Parts: sequence; C-alpha cells; structure tokens
Amino acid sequence: MDLTTALAALKDGTLTARDLAEACIAARAERPDARDNPYVAFSAGLLRAQADAADIRRAAGRPLSDFDGIPLSLKDNYGTGTVCGGTWPVFAGSPRRLPPLWNQPGGVVSRLLAQGAVVTGKTRMVEFAFGGLGANGHWGTPRNPWDRDHHRVPGGSSTGAPLSLHEGSALLALGTDTAGSVRIPAAWNGLYGYKSARGHLATDGIVPLSPRLDTVGILALTADDLAQGYRLLTGTVIDPLTDPGVIRIGRAPEALWQDCSPGVVAAVDTALDRLTGLFRPVDSVTIPELDEALALFRRGGLAGAEIYGFLSQELPAWLPSLDAYVGPRIRASADVLDYDARVAFLDRFANGVQALFHDVDVVALPTVAITPPLLADLAEPSAYGRANLMALRNCCVANLGDMAAVTLPVGRDAAGCPVGLQLLAPRGADAHLLAIARAAAAHLAGDY
Amino acid sequence: MDLTTALAALKDGTLTARDLAEACIAARAERPDARDNPYVAFSAGLLRAQADAADIRRAAGRPLSDFDGIPLSLKDNYGTGTVCGGTWPVFAGSPRRLPPLWNQPGGVVSRLLAQGAVVTGKTRMVEFAFGGLGANGHWGTPRNPWDRDHHRVPGGSSTGAPLSLHEGSALLALGTDTAGSVRIPAAWNGLYGYKSARGHLATDGIVPLSPRLDTVGILALTADDLAQGYRLLTGTVIDPLTDPGVIRIGRAPEALWQDCSPGVVAAVDTALDRLTGLFRPVDSVTIPELDEALALFRRGGLAGAEIYGFLSQELPAWLPSLDAYVGPRIRASADVLDYDARVAFLDRFANGVQALFHDVDVVALPTVAITPPLLADLAEPSAYGRANLMALRNCCVANLGDMAAVTLPVGRDAAGCPVGLQLLAPRGADAHLLAIARAAAAHLAGDY
Repeated sequence: MDLTTALAALKDGTLTARDLAEACIAARAERPDARDNPYVAFSAGLLRAQADAADIRRAAGRPLSDFDGIPLSLKDNYGTGTVCGGTWPVFAGSPRRLPPLWNQPGGVVSRLLAQGAVVTGKTRMVEFAFGGLGANGHWGTPRNPWDRDHHRVPGGSSTGAPLSLHEGSALLALGTDTAGSVRIPAAWNGLYGYKSARGHLATDGIVPLSPRLDTVGILALTADDLAQGYRLLTGTVIDPLTDPGVIRIGRAPEALWQDCSPGVVAAVDTALDRLTGLFRPVDSVTIPELDEALALFRRGGLAGAEIYGFLSQELPAWLPSLDAYVGPRIRASADVLDYDARVAFLDRFANGVQALFHDVDVVALPTVAITPPLLADLAEPSAYGRANLMALRNCCVANLGDMAAVTLPVGRDAAGCPVGLQLLAPRGADAHLLAIARAAAAHLAGDY
Repeated sequence: MDLTTALAALKDGTLTARDLAEACIAARAERPDARDNPYVAFSAGLLRAQADAADIRRAAGRPLSDFDGIPLSLKDNYGTGTVCGGTWPVFAGSPRRLPPLWNQPGGVVSRLLAQGAVVTGKTRMVEFAFGGLGANGHWGTPRNPWDRDHHRVPGGSSTGAPLSLHEGSALLALGTDTAGSVRIPAAWNGLYGYKSARGHLATDGIVPLSPRLDTVGILALTADDLAQGYRLLTGTVIDPLTDPGVIRIGRAPEALWQDCSPGVVAAVDTALDRLTGLFRPVDSVTIPELDEALALFRRGGLAGAEIYGFLSQELPAWLPSLDAYVGPRIRASADVLDYDARVAFLDRFANGVQALFHDVDVVALPTVAITPPLLADLAEPSAYGRANLMALRNCCVANLGDMAAVTLPVGRDAAGCPVGLQLLAPRGADAHLLAIARAAAAHLAGDY
C-alpha cells in the first residue's frame, strides 16, 4: 500500500493506524536475513503504542492531522526524544550511541510527531553519512533488493531508508542528503526521492556531516507520496500543474552524461524523450564553473573538513575507530588548509547556478552515473574511492550549487538495476519542483 | 488586540479577517510621521485582498488553519513571491531592490501563507542586517516609541518589526537574528522575542547575512502570542509546563552583567528574584571560553567575512554604496584571513555550551546591556561601533553557542526605557524554552 492510499483509507475509516502498524511489523518479520534489515532499531511494541494512540484520537474525532497514524522510518542520524514512553538510540552509523544531546528532536521530527506520524524505527546509514554507496563496516552492508544473485550495495548514506519502503515496513522514509545521500539510494532502489534546497527544511536535531551543505530529504514509493511527505513536513499542498506545457526542461551539461554505466543514459534519454510531449524542451544548459566545482568535490569539498572538525571537537576518541570506508577519508581531511577559499568558491558557484534558471525551470540528468557496485568490488580503498565519487558525481552538484532536486525511477540499466532521472530546480522552487515531478511521473506511468 | 485574542475571535466569528485588516490600516494611518513608519512597503489594497480571501474561506467553513486571516509583518529580507496577484519588494535595507531570485518565498513564508496568514508589509531593517542598533542611512532611522522627547534608536537589525506591533499594524512580526537582531528590538520596545536554534526554522528565501549563524525569530506582544507564532511556523503546540518547580534557572557569568547602563541590572535582578518563587535557582553558570568567543565577536566574528563574500560575489557594484553604518565594517572584513580557524573555534565553543545544560535548563541574563542610544550620539563611527558591540554583546552568545533564546520585558531602566530578561536554552529545546517563557511571563504579570 502506498502513502496516498493509506491516507484516504485512514480518513474514511476503512483502515486503522493499528492495521498499518501490524502490516509494517509483518513485513519486517518476513525478512529474517540480517543483511536485509533496514533498521538499526525497530520496535514493534513502540510502533503499536504509537498507532493505538493515533486510533484513540481518531475515534474521538480529534486526529492530530491527516497523517495521524502514518508509519515512517527515520535515518539513524535523527534525534527523536521520548515517544509513547520509549525512545530510539542515535548511532549515526557508528558502533556506539551518541551523547544524549543528539537524542533531542529537531524541527522536522517535532513537526511530524505533532502531526501524529508514527516512527517505525531508525534506518541504517553510512558512518556519519560520509559516503554514497551504503557500505558500513560496523553494522554490515545491506543487499540491494534488485539483484538477488549478487550482493550489490543499496546506496547511501541513507542506506536503510529505501529498504524500509521496499519491504513495506514504512510508507515514507526520511533521510539526509549532503552530496546525494537521499537520491542515490532512492534511484538505486527504483524509488522517488527529494532533496530540499539548503535551509528549506529544519536540520537541527540531526547529527551533522556538513552544516553548510546538509539537507533533509524524503524517499517515497510514488511522486504523489513524495508530495504528501512534503505536506507533512511543511503544511504546503502540492497542487497539480495547471499548464505543464510552460515548464522549460533543459539537459544538463555533457560532463554529467559521460562515463555512465551501460544502459543508464539510454534509460534517462528515453524518459526525457517522452517528457518532451509534456514539457517544453530547451537547449542544453551551461553550469558556470561546473568543472571547478566537481574538482573541488573530488578533493573532499567541505564535508571532509567539517566532519573532521565535528568529531575532533565532540568525539575525539572515536576518530581512530571509524570504519575503513570512511575513516581514512575523514582523517585525511584534517589537512584541508584552504577551507575558507572553498567556501568562497562555492558561494560564487551557487550564485552562478541560480542565474541559469532564468532560462529554464528544471535541469535533467541521470541521478547516478553508475550501476550499484558489487560489494566485493569495494574492498580495495582505491576502488571504493573511485566508485563513491562516481556515485556522487551527478548528485553533489545540487548540494554545491544550492538546488532542490528530485529523482524519479525511469527504467533499468544493462545490469537490470534501477535508473533514476534527476530534475534540478533553484532555491525557493522546492514546491514547484515537486509539482513538476508529479506531472512527469503521471506522464511516464506505465512506460517502463 | 493581541494575537491570542484575535485567534479566538476569528474562531467564534465575532471578528473577521477584514476587521483585523482595517484595524491594521487605521493604525498605520494614525502615524503620519515618516520616522515612525515601520515599513519599507505596506499595501492596504493587498492587505484587504488577502483578508477578504481568508473571510471567504472561513465563510465556506474551510479556513486554511486557525491562523487564516491573521495579519503579520515580515522583515525586508524575506522573499514572499506573489500573493493575491501582488507582491512586495525586497531591499534588505539597501536603497535598491535585490535581484528577482530573492523575491522567492522560502520555507517560513511558504508555511505561513499556506496557513492563511496575511502579510501586512515588509519592515525596515539595518542594511543587510549588519548591525544591532537600527540605524539606516538610506531609509532613515526610526524613533524608539518609548522616548517621545529624544530620538533614541529602536534596535535592529529587525528595526521595523517591533514598531509594527507597537503601532498595531500587525499582530506578529517575523525577523532574523544573527547576533541579536530580533531580541534587541524586542527588548528595547517592551516586547517578547524568540530566536530559534540554528537550523530549527527554515532560513531559505531570506537574504543571508551569515549562513552559519542566521536564524529566524519572532516578535510578539505577549508570551502566549510568541507560542502561537511558533505554532504557526512549526505546527507544534506549546502546552503549559506541568511542573515549573523542576525548571533549573542559572545566572549567566558575571562578564555579561558588567558595564550595563544604570537600572538594567536592577530590573533584571528584580524579575529573577520573583522567578525564584516559580523555578529552581541554581548556581551561576560557567560558559567555557566565553571570553574568547566575545573577543572573536568583537573582531567581526563570521558575519563580516560572510556578508562581504556574499556581496562581492552577488552584488559587487553595491559594495561602495553601502551606508556609513555598515559599509566600513563590511569592507574591512575583506581582510579576514583566519575564517576557517574562526569556524573551528565556534564549533568547539558551541559544543562546550551544550554540555553546560546538563546542570541547568535555562540561563538568565539581561537581553541588552545598554539603554537604547540617542541617534545623535552615533554619528561618529567609533561611537557607533562601541554602542553596536555593547548592544549585541549579551545576545551574540546565543548565536555563537547555538542556543535558542527568548526575551521578556521586565521593567524600565534609569532612562525610562524597556529592559528585557533573556533566557537561553540548548539546541533542541526551542519548544521547551517557549513553554518556560509562558510560565515566567504569567508569574511576572502585573509586577512592573
């Protein structure tokens, strides 16, 4: 069942929150293999307690909102506080619980709890969110459910978020996205994903990776569900576009189409061709200083220095025990000497990016250039590093340039893995972008 | 009329949104002196159009929320987009309209419009929000309404926000606070003010001063109204404290009580004495590295370098024509060479600050150390600089240390000007702090 269907069924009384909770618990129970577990913490008891409270409110005619009783999963870097007398730990992908400060809920969790949404649990993630593949040496790396023959990575850093949707233990999944950490796992699991523009959704109460670039994002089963998730977090209804024909869609620069895995470009191009019947195509877009921005990203961007600074201040004893996928890269960032120059460059880059949207409403590109790698191919640090950078390449542009972004599933690549179409929009256009995504998804429906 | 009263009257139908709009327009019309004008843009027509739309929704039984039809003012650094076919310009205190990018509404404005709140206009501010006194050489400096004999500054940088409440042309006023820009004007005008912890409320769609330290804040006539404003922006209801006696209130370090203008400390101490009958007093609090943080702030903190970077990238032609109150300080920040060291220090400082809240729930201090200066005394740059730093001193600690903060009016100083009591709380405690402010205000009511 998708979120939009569940909202309607809760409203007309054909379904209770407890029914939804039991379906989540049953879905979880059907997957006994620990490699398929989306969660670091999942509590059937706490899920039922929250659902029963929602049902009592609905029976009394006083639901907290349309979302009262809707189950959703939270990435393991969100603090929740105490809910129905219980709580969930915060590990942020590390092997130990973070200090109690990080248990506090921030703006996003406070708001969804105030609306009556039900937390299913905390989903697995890359340690301190510093990686796009989903590999975690402490907790293990889950399997991508789209390849049952090989252990492919599910994407990250919001690794468990798509798995919670895929198995049916949540109807919506919240993640964070600093360079692609919501969109990569969404795309590699055939799901819809949305990354907000900087500062558009509250980031307090979330363990930081890069305070300048961290953003909240949503994963969902459908584009309509993504819009409902946005309404849950903002109160803003995403109305259908009145005239999709005025939406100008441009093709991202050629650099972001190069070196893609077999079948990726073909799947995205097929979808884009179909969308020219809905939107108004314009010429390819030039992103000023894109090469410089990507080069900066390859040198670690801002996140490496910022997470190193955070850990060295807050948890210095943890630095030596970071896992092999993230530890060497974080410790190497102790030597970033040009942090302020990087900030200045990115300010300029983001301002230049905003200007290009005078001529186009959305920019299209493959969400991820490559097929989800086999876990076995990532054992060598250099191989991991190359795959990680390639997975992040087409996503990090939105964070560096301060854009909102969505990913839509549009087909399969040559390896049979899901491919995402990414659409980028400028600051301030989050709601508009989600309306465009709804229109695009409806137009593409059934075509793949 | 205050906001809480208006919400009840709208709900029971004894008042219409149009009634409220007409009251705002009449209040505005009663103050013909341009020095008392809170606004850079105020449109009676647009106010009536929004109010009538709200009344139509209410008459149809479909208000967008409890807040449908509530008039509020926005600081002139907020983008609004088009509302009821009209729009407001964005100057951010400068003499020219900013590029259209900055007209877009961000998360806060999108949310309040989705709730049906009515925008009265854009309130005056210090140019690019870089100052705490309220002086603006382009638009003129409004008068503080509490001294009719002399032209005292009203505080800033959210200069017009308190004036819109004071004259009755808005029931709630939104500002921004990077070092005190909401709390100073609230305190100097006998009002309640709230500054959110970093990232707790959306900052997109607002012209930036310091992306790392900028926060959204609310000014209101009462503590209950402040809580309602928080509900408008977050959906979270601020329930009364069940047991105020468990709230531990600590006194800020002595450095923040020194060099205050006559009567300031006495007014705050009198209020704190009264509050010991409500809360549980604890010993004075030590803030680790406070002296170093204040020294860094005196050297320009982060904001100078960040606004210089923004302007040199985005609006380089505007740099030479900044007004005399902000231009020299911004241009001098071109030479900040240790920006990354400053960031690293402030990360450490903020983490140390959070730890002190193991032993205390709120820390109390005077909101502003000094009486609002006479405008005539600020003509010399060095005098302006000294007064500006003293006005900001007790507020900037909350921004540098990543705290939520409120100010409550608690009396008058020896010059007869309002004095504020500031309460600080850690990250994640925004809602708790507003509940504490409600309890404190109710306890103090009628005592001054």
